[in-house]
Amino acid sequence: MKKVAILGSTGSIGTQTLDVVSANPDDLEVVAISASSNIKMLEEQIRQFHPRLCAVYNEDKAKELEANIKDVTPACRIVSGMDGLIELAVMEESDIIITAVVGMIGIVPTIEAIKAGKDIGLANKETLVTAGHIIMPLAKEKGVSILPVDSEHSAIFQCLNGERDNHISKILLTASGGPFRGMTREQLSGVTLEMALKHPNWSMGRKITIDSSTMVNKGLEVIEAKWLFGVEPSQIEVVVQPQSIIHSMVEFDDGAVMAQLGTPDMRLPIQYALYYPKRIFLDGKRLDFSTLSEITFSKPDPDTFLGLRFAYSAIETGGSMPTVFNAANECAVARFLDGKIRFLEIYEMIDYCMKNHKNIDNPDVAQILETEKWVYDSIESRWN
Amino acid sequence: MKKVAILGSTGSIGTQTLDVVSANPDDLEVVAISASSNIKMLEEQIRQFHPRLCAVYNEDKAKELEANIKDVTPACRIVSGMDGLIELAVMEESDIIITAVVGMIGIVPTIEAIKAGKDIGLANKETLVTAGHIIMPLAKEKGVSILPVDSEHSAIFQCLNGERDNHISKILLTASGGPFRGMTREQLSGVTLEMALKHPNWSMGRKITIDSSTMVNKGLEVIEAKWLFGVEPSQIEVVVQPQSIIHSMVEFDDGAVMAQLGTPDMRLPIQYALYYPKRIFLDGKRLDFSTLSEITFSKPDPDTFLGLRFAYSAIETGGSMPTVFNAANECAVARFLDGKIRFLEIYEMIDYCMKNHKNIDNPDVAQILETEKWVYDSIESRWN
Repeated sequence: MKKVAILGSTGSIGTQTLDVVSANPDDLEVVAISASSNIKMLEEQIRQFHPRLCAVYNEDKAKELEANIKDVTPACRIVSGMDGLIELAVMEESDIIITAVVGMIGIVPTIEAIKAGKDIGLANKETLVTAGHIIMPLAKEKGVSILPVDSEHSAIFQCLNGERDNHISKILLTASGGPFRGMTREQLSGVTLEMALKHPNWSMGRKITIDSSTMVNKGLEVIEAKWLFGVEPSQIEVVVQPQSIIHSMVEFDDGAVMAQLGTPDMRLPIQYALYYPKRIFLDGKRLDFSTLSEITFSKPDPDTFLGLRFAYSAIETGGSMPTVFNAANECAVARFLDGKIRFLEIYEMIDYCMKNHKNIDNPDVAQILETEKWVYDSIESRWN
Repeated sequence: MKKVAILGSTGSIGTQTLDVVSANPDDLEVVAISASSNIKMLEEQIRQFHPRLCAVYNEDKAKELEANIKDVTPACRIVSGMDGLIELAVMEESDIIITAVVGMIGIVPTIEAIKAGKDIGLANKETLVTAGHIIMPLAKEKGVSILPVDSEHSAIFQCLNGERDNHISKILLTASGGPFRGMTREQLSGVTLEMALKHPNWSMGRKITIDSSTMVNKGLEVIEAKWLFGVEPSQIEVVVQPQSIIHSMVEFDDGAVMAQLGTPDMRLPIQYALYYPKRIFLDGKRLDFSTLSEITFSKPDPDTFLGLRFAYSAIETGGSMPTVFNAANECAVARFLDGKIRFLEIYEMIDYCMKNHKNIDNPDVAQILETEKWVYDSIESRWN
């Protein structure tokens, strides 16, 4: 029985993690769940999965939930705030933490979980993007596995199965190109929130769907891949593959390219992380090559979709610059989702912050979080 | 230093094996070579690679070669006939035998090599097609590795890296469809030898090129895959992928499909077999996804290209029937290459032999070779 704690159980990855647990009650048990404030869904999850611990970031909501689940036995302990998230991260009963929160709030709990020797199913991109230089050496020191939980990095991880001693010549990170693929900069200027929220292939959370439309998501994945697989940014090539059938590829020194293909189903990388290196049956659609017809490829357009360009620039600069890239995007996307800014202003905000940031080499967690604050303050004072 | 013996060093796979050895003189050494009768090329190979042993199947040619290389030091011993091939197969100095001969002549030396504990780099399809039921248990008993040396089975083998404990749900064996893909039966009736020898993607020997145009080659590969990977024929799906970029795929229980892609270069599977599980640099063209544009898929047409249909029928019957399928094809293709029969008569000869054969369950090597003789005699008496 593998004991699973979920940091962010009410989002897209969190709920699909619970789906995988539901389907495999003999192998998997949920020992902890958490969310920012969605206590209605947390209550349902507590009643269905009977975790021992539930962390609610919002303190008032935590108290409210505590009152609402008084009748549940065995009792589920409610904790709150960052202390609560950390308590979840280090709880003795868990074997693996799925870090499915969105945003930089995931960094500290992830570091604490690694220190406590927990394996990490990593769905929180921001952790490696901002603190990869801290996380990866720490995981190595603690003998902890960082198991990627997104389709691209899981695909790469699967391609590396049995290849640990072989040198990676190139990572071919596939991208759907998002809903605006092929558009010009002029066309992008007229894009609405509704249009940006319609991803052609994947059903995902709102923030990541916007990031996919700007290619910032792919940029974050490039940075993440650098840390996860120990390659140089120049070894990571983004390949646009609009059907999202090839989830990513690895080219080795002999020229062989290994690829993982599949239907778009996030339960696969989640289950793979929970069972690695074992594969078990997963219900769902299979690829059907007799009806598939074709897989097409094209180059990304970094002159129009600046997300990729910013990402390569940030990772080449290193230090706190990837944090600036990520935080400026978080801040901008939140405003775009609130209808406060236009689509192209997302790029403008990232560009502004990256140009005005005094880079910090090898930042510690405090400096990373200060950088995040600096970004938010900069955007606030420049745009309000 | 890995010591390599090559059964069939003058053909397409044999010479490319020598290319791989040439490129890696610090890791690989050729200790034996062989051919049916091409002593001119054997002499060149002896002078370049200095093997200790050379087997020439034709006894007269063996004597001739012996006389021609008297000046070579250190001396290369020349042996001949089937005894000579077996002597090569079991020679103490070798670590691995590349079985690159074409036809059923490879069966006995391969079995003897396995008995002597040699790893096998298997390029001779007929061995597993006709004697898979003998070879695979014997290899297991002797702890010998059977390493596939063709692009499809090597691709599958690469996809299974690190997946040994995971159940294969399906093997997706890719096929270019050959030069006549899309043709009707009527169009096929007018096909000439010259047309059949033009493969769209791969440069290969003449016999295998014809087999590719009839889809018999893919049929032989289906049977081979059954033995190599221990799956049922119903688990093997042939997918037409005309660009020959995906070399084959494996679908697992979780729906993940692992694939190996690459440019068409037989040196890759050869090198992979020689270095497995290590990958080393191989010069040559790389896949370029920015110019690749597309990979297309379609279903095979087994009503027109009967090669696949015969193969599934033969493997379902089992026993000596795959030998009949293979031997009838060998015999028919030889006649087609000599300009003696029309293209569609290849299918007629296979069909005739499979319909008239009294199947032998679990045939031993003698019975397999008798079946081959029966096929040749049957075709001779029916068509001459």
